[in-house]
Amino acid sequence: MEFTAKQIADLIGGRVEGNENAKINTFAKIEEGKEGAISFLSNPKYTPYIYETKSSVVLVNNDLELEHPVACTLIRVENAYECVAKLMQMYAQMMPKKKGIDSLAFVAKSAKIGKDVYIGPFACIGENVTIGDGTAIYPHVVVYDGCKIGNNVTIHAGSVIGADGFGFAPNTEGYEKIPQLGTVVIEDDVEIGANTCIDRSTMGQTIIHKGVKLDNLIQVAHNCEIGENTVMSAQVGMAGSTKIGAWCMVGGQAGFAGHIKIADRTFIGAQSGVISNTKGNGEQLIGAPAIDPKLFFKAQAVVKRLPDMYRELNALRKELEELKKSK
Amino acid sequence: MEFTAKQIADLIGGRVEGNENAKINTFAKIEEGKEGAISFLSNPKYTPYIYETKSSVVLVNNDLELEHPVACTLIRVENAYECVAKLMQMYAQMMPKKKGIDSLAFVAKSAKIGKDVYIGPFACIGENVTIGDGTAIYPHVVVYDGCKIGNNVTIHAGSVIGADGFGFAPNTEGYEKIPQLGTVVIEDDVEIGANTCIDRSTMGQTIIHKGVKLDNLIQVAHNCEIGENTVMSAQVGMAGSTKIGAWCMVGGQAGFAGHIKIADRTFIGAQSGVISNTKGNGEQLIGAPAIDPKLFFKAQAVVKRLPDMYRELNALRKELEELKKSK
Amino acid sequence: MEFTAKQIADLIGGRVEGNENAKINTFAKIEEGKEGAISFLSNPKYTPYIYETKSSVVLVNNDLELEHPVACTLIRVENAYECVAKLMQMYAQMMPKKKGIDSLAFVAKSAKIGKDVYIGPFACIGENVTIGDGTAIYPHVVVYDGCKIGNNVTIHAGSVIGADGFGFAPNTEGYEKIPQLGTVVIEDDVEIGANTCIDRSTMGQTIIHKGVKLDNLIQVAHNCEIGENTVMSAQVGMAGSTKIGAWCMVGGQAGFAGHIKIADRTFIGAQSGVISNTKGNGEQLIGAPAIDPKLFFKAQAVVKRLPDMYRELNALRKELEELKKSK
Repeated sequence: MEFTAKQIADLIGGRVEGNENAKINTFAKIEEGKEGAISFLSNPKYTPYIYETKSSVVLVNNDLELEHPVACTLIRVENAYECVAKLMQMYAQMMPKKKGIDSLAFVAKSAKIGKDVYIGPFACIGENVTIGDGTAIYPHVVVYDGCKIGNNVTIHAGSVIGADGFGFAPNTEGYEKIPQLGTVVIEDDVEIGANTCIDRSTMGQTIIHKGVKLDNLIQVAHNCEIGENTVMSAQVGMAGSTKIGAWCMVGGQAGFAGHIKIADRTFIGAQSGVISNTKGNGEQLIGAPAIDPKLFFKAQAVVKRLPDMYRELNALRKELEELKKSK
Repeated sequence: MEFTAKQIADLIGGRVEGNENAKINTFAKIEEGKEGAISFLSNPKYTPYIYETKSSVVLVNNDLELEHPVACTLIRVENAYECVAKLMQMYAQMMPKKKGIDSLAFVAKSAKIGKDVYIGPFACIGENVTIGDGTAIYPHVVVYDGCKIGNNVTIHAGSVIGADGFGFAPNTEGYEKIPQLGTVVIEDDVEIGANTCIDRSTMGQTIIHKGVKLDNLIQVAHNCEIGENTVMSAQVGMAGSTKIGAWCMVGGQAGFAGHIKIADRTFIGAQSGVISNTKGNGEQLIGAPAIDPKLFFKAQAVVKRLPDMYRELNALRKELEELKKSK
Repeated sequence: MEFTAKQIADLIGGRVEGNENAKINTFAKIEEGKEGAISFLSNPKYTPYIYETKSSVVLVNNDLELEHPVACTLIRVENAYECVAKLMQMYAQMMPKKKGIDSLAFVAKSAKIGKDVYIGPFACIGENVTIGDGTAIYPHVVVYDGCKIGNNVTIHAGSVIGADGFGFAPNTEGYEKIPQLGTVVIEDDVEIGANTCIDRSTMGQTIIHKGVKLDNLIQVAHNCEIGENTVMSAQVGMAGSTKIGAWCMVGGQAGFAGHIKIADRTFIGAQSGVISNTKGNGEQLIGAPAIDPKLFFKAQAVVKRLPDMYRELNALRKELEELKKSK
C-alpha cells in the first residue's frame, strides 16, 4: 500500500508543508527514518531529529517552529501523537487480517467456534470450549476443556487457559490432589499476551471480565476474578481466589496474595507485593508489603542512610550517657 | 451423572435433612449456588448464604444451628470441608480419564512409554525419553532427549523439561557455550503446572523427587534438586545447583541464589530472596534477603516511619549539642 | 563413543597417573562418579571425593597432593576446570547435531531459511521471517511474521518471538489497541532459553544484538534493545523502550522500568528493580530501587535492627527531655 502526503493529510485533516506527492508506504521512528516512511514529532526532546531524519514525511504539531528548512515534507495537525495512532489503526485495519481455523490446529469436535475467528497452527481447543465471534487465537495457545472465550478476544502464542488450579491437601505420605472441576470464562474484548497462564477454578469459574488487557508471562490462579478494563503488565502473579476490581493498573512483576480484594481504579506499582484488601477507588500502592508511593520513595531514600543513622544513634547514646554522668 | 441427596449421604456417612430425593449433578460455591448443585458450608463467614443459596443440597457440619428454615436440603457430616473434597475426588475418578497417545503428539521412536499414559496433542517427547505408568502429559509439553519421567506424573500444557542449562564461559569476543550433557529426572507422583521450565544438568541430573508439586511459570535451573513432597507456588525461580529439602513450602515469585542448600520443612514466603544455606527443619523465612517473618514484618512496620525517624535523629543531635554548649 | 585415559590425556596435553587404558564413555560429577565416567576436581572443597569416587578417570590440577593412593586413574593438567569444559565442547561437537526442518514444523512459504538450520516439531515460523545459517529453533518456538533471526542462533522450546507489544490507549469505554507494526531482530550467536517472550515493536524494531544470552521465562517488551554479549538470568523483565548496553550481566527476576538506558558492563543483582538511567561502565547495582551493592547489604543488615532502633530513639528522646527539665 502506498499513499501520498496529500492523501494522508486529507484523511486526518492536516496541512501539507513541502512535497504533496511525497510517497509513503510504512511507519518509522523519527530517529530511525528512511525513505518512504512517515514519522511523527511530539516530544520536544526529539525536535533536533526533524533536521536530519530520512523519513519522507513527518507529522508535526501545528505550533512547531522551525529554525531552518527541512528536507522532509511536513503534515501539520493539532495533535501529532493522536494522529499517528489513528493512522496506525487505519493501516492495521487495511492489512489482511488472519482468519479461519488453520489446518494444523486441533479443535475438539464438541467445541463451538464463532464467526470470523482465527485459530493458528498448533493451537489446541479442548472439548466443549466456546469461542466467540471475531476472536483470534494465536499459534500454540491451549484452551482446556469447558472454557468459554468471548467475542473479539485476542490470545497470543503459548498462553494456557484452564490448566488445573494448584490445589493439594497434605496427608502423612504426601499431597492429595483436590480436583479442579471449574472452568475459565474470558469475556469480550480481552487481550492476553504470550505464555500467560489462567488456571481453571476448583468449582465455579475463574473470570476475566470485559476489556481486560494482560501482558506476557502472567499467572492468574484458580478462582481469581479480574474486573473490567483492568490492565496488567508482564510477569504479574495472582494467588488463588483474589479479586481485582475494574479499571486497575498493575505494574510488571507485582504479586497478589490469595483471597484478597482490590478496589476499582487501584494503581499498583511494579514489583509490589499486595497482601491485604485495599481501601478504595483511586488508591496507589507500591512496595512489598505495598504502601503509599510517596511514603515508599521517602522511606527508600532513608534506607540508604540507615548505616549512618545506626552509627549516629549509637553516638548519641554515648554522648547522652556522658552528659548524664557529668552532671 | 446424577445422584440423590440420599445416595450422597450414604456414600459419605451423612444425615439428610430435607428432601432425600433432591437431585444433584454438579458442584457450586454456596454463594454461586444453582439448582442441581451441591455446595458446602464450613467457614462461619459464609453462614448467611445458607438461607439464600439456590443450590439443591448443602453439606454442613453436624453442629450447625439454623436460625430459621432453609430452602435447600442439608446433609449433616462431621467435617463438611473434608467431605466435599472426598466427593470431588470420587467425582473426578468417575469422569472419563484422558488416555492414550494423541495422534497429533510427536513421540520419538526410541522413547519408552509406560501403561495408561496420556500424551496430548502437540506434545513432543524426545529421543530415549522414558515415561512411567499412569502419567499425563498435556498438550504442548516438550520433553527433551534423554529425560526420565516417573509414574503418575502430571505435566500441564507448555512446560519444558530438559532444555539446556544456562552455562556460558566468557572469552574476549563473547561467550562460549558450556555443553549441557546431563538430563532431568522427575520421580513418581510429581505434578508440574503450565509453562514451567526445568533445565537439564551440565552433567549428571536435575532431580525432582517423589511427590513434588510445582505450580505454573517456575524456573528450575541446571543441576538443581527438589526434595520429596516440596510444594512451590507460581513464578518461583531457582538458580543453578541449588538443593531444596523435603516437605518445604515456597511462596509465589520467591527466588533462590545458586549453589545453596535449603533444609527440610523450610517455609519460604512469597517474593523472598534466599541467598544462603538455611539452618534447619521448620525454619520460616521471608523478605529479600530472607529473614525471620516476625522480624521482617516488625522491621517493615518501622520502615514506614523512617522519614520521621530521620528527622527525629537530626533533632536529637541538635538539641544534644545545645545542651552540651549550655553546660 | 569410548576413549582411553591415554587418548584423553594426549588430546588435552595431560599426564596419566594410573591405568592408561581405563575406558571412559561419559561425564559425571566427582561426587556422583560411576564406572566409565570421567570427572574433574578443581574446588578444594571436593578433594575428599577423590578417595571414594567411582569414576574411572579424574582430571586434576598438576599441584594436587594426595594423602594416600586412589582407586581411580588421574590425568594431571594445568587447569582441570578449563580442560573439562574443553572436553565437553569436543564431546558435544562429536554428537550428532539436530538438523533439518522437521516435517511437523510449520514454516510459511514466504519465510527464508538459511543453511544447516534445525527447526523442531511444532515450531511455527511466520510469513516473511528470515532465519540465518546454522540456527537451531527447538520445538514449539513461535516466530511471528516479519521477524529476522541471524546466524548460529539457538532458541529453546516454547519461546515466542514477535508477539504484539503491550500498547493500549484508554478511552471512556475501555482501551483501544495501538497496532504493533514493527518487528524483532535477533542478531548472530544469540541464545534464548525456554518460554521467553520478545515482543515486536510498535514501529521499527526490538533488537537483540550479537552474542546476547537470555535464560528462560524472560520478558522483553516492545522497542527494547539489548547490547552485544549481555547475559540475563531467568525471569528478568524489561518494560517498553528500555535499552541495555553491551557486556552487562543481569541476575534472575530483576526488572527494568520503561524508557531507561543501562550503560555497558553494568552488573544488576537478582530481584533488583532498576528505575532510572545508570551512570557508566562497570557499575554494580542491587535492590529495588537498585543501589550500590555494598550500601545495599549494609543497609539491609541495619533493617533487621530497625525495631530496636525505633525503641532506642524513643528512649533517647525521653531521657533528653528529662535531662533538659532537670537543668
